[in-house]
Amino acid sequence: MTSLPIPSSQLLEALQWRYATKAFDPTRKIPAETWSALENSLVLSASSFGIQPYRFIVVNDRATRERLLPHAWGQAQIVDASHLVVFAARTSVTATEIDGFIARIAATRGVPVESLGGYKGMMTGMLLSEGFQPFAPHWAARQAYIALGNLLTSAALLGVDACPMEGFVPAEFDKILDLPAQGLTAAVACTLGYRSSGDKYATLAKVRAPKAELFKTV
Amino acid sequence: MTSLPIPSSQLLEALQWRYATKAFDPTRKIPAETWSALENSLVLSASSFGIQPYRFIVVNDRATRERLLPHAWGQAQIVDASHLVVFAARTSVTATEIDGFIARIAATRGVPVESLGGYKGMMTGMLLSEGFQPFAPHWAARQAYIALGNLLTSAALLGVDACPMEGFVPAEFDKILDLPAQGLTAAVACTLGYRSSGDKYATLAKVRAPKAELFKTV
Repeated sequence: MTSLPIPSSQLLEALQWRYATKAFDPTRKIPAETWSALENSLVLSASSFGIQPYRFIVVNDRATRERLLPHAWGQAQIVDASHLVVFAARTSVTATEIDGFIARIAATRGVPVESLGGYKGMMTGMLLSEGFQPFAPHWAARQAYIALGNLLTSAALLGVDACPMEGFVPAEFDKILDLPAQGLTAAVACTLGYRSSGDKYATLAKVRAPKAELFKTV
Repeated sequence: MTSLPIPSSQLLEALQWRYATKAFDPTRKIPAETWSALENSLVLSASSFGIQPYRFIVVNDRATRERLLPHAWGQAQIVDASHLVVFAARTSVTATEIDGFIARIAATRGVPVESLGGYKGMMTGMLLSEGFQPFAPHWAARQAYIALGNLLTSAALLGVDACPMEGFVPAEFDKILDLPAQGLTAAVACTLGYRSSGDKYATLAKVRAPKAELFKTV
């Protein structure tokens, strides 16, 4: 690491600056270089086994955003924000996917597939077991939420506003974005861009449980 | 913002540096000032409605860590890492909790409780509805995962290594940490500290799906 770590005051300044942006400036777009960095932050997110059981749907098409809008309680961020990402989580995991992932590890690290038998066995034992099936969509969604948490912090550090959004009807988003055919379902969404100068939420004091309540030390 | 944004290269350098640390240097402790900043990053995490339906259990007691160890498949991070955080998510939400949260908003922002009737109605309508009850633990766990994603990125920027951990038996963690009596269950854990110079995982190439596969632009 050369330019790292950053001072903790800088990190906390960004996290204090961040808030769930309700009104975006519809005229301001995230520059391509900054957006590319945010995409890379999503690529680098941690996930269970590293298997990335999700896809990121970036909705740039205005007409599609307008179709999504009524299924997100008409929240204007959906159409006004520079970018809209729908975190689409896998509804199940298959042997084909595990094989593909193992092949990718082998190719990336220049090792024989056979040397990864133990890792593959661990993954198969968990992800393909009968008992795991009902939990699989929740497990995949949780991995997507790690990516969301990472994205919110990354965006704040790059001076990009964001609004994490659970307030939508997944089944309708799924239909409009054709997710079930891909084995996916909309887990959560995030709009990103720049706050409108008129967003009254920007200046409200943050409401948080005190540390003494939020943390318990054993 | 004064010292922000940070260059995107700096963010990506931190995210590249981060990896799921398997071997921690048991002799190195996170300095108090750095740990306090990481606690503050958890305090500042985003959550649904802002209600923070979780508690962070910081396990410093060596004997307790040793009791947790066999229920985490003996993964040495549990005892060797400087810090161990168990993300304990609420198993349900009650009217008392919503009232307490509304009172906190009123107090923090200096507004009458009555002015928050609309917000309270929205929360109650969702969180106390019968249909929501089976989903409540999943919803709470997802919020905890946002905090996990935020913590992983925050730690990397501060030069602190981390290992997110799902590989443990929640029911056993719950028992040892007395979580059910508090309406909580262990959703995920994270060990933090400094990588051992002997951790061979530190230098392995990152395995990630290519952007063309991970992203779909509509």
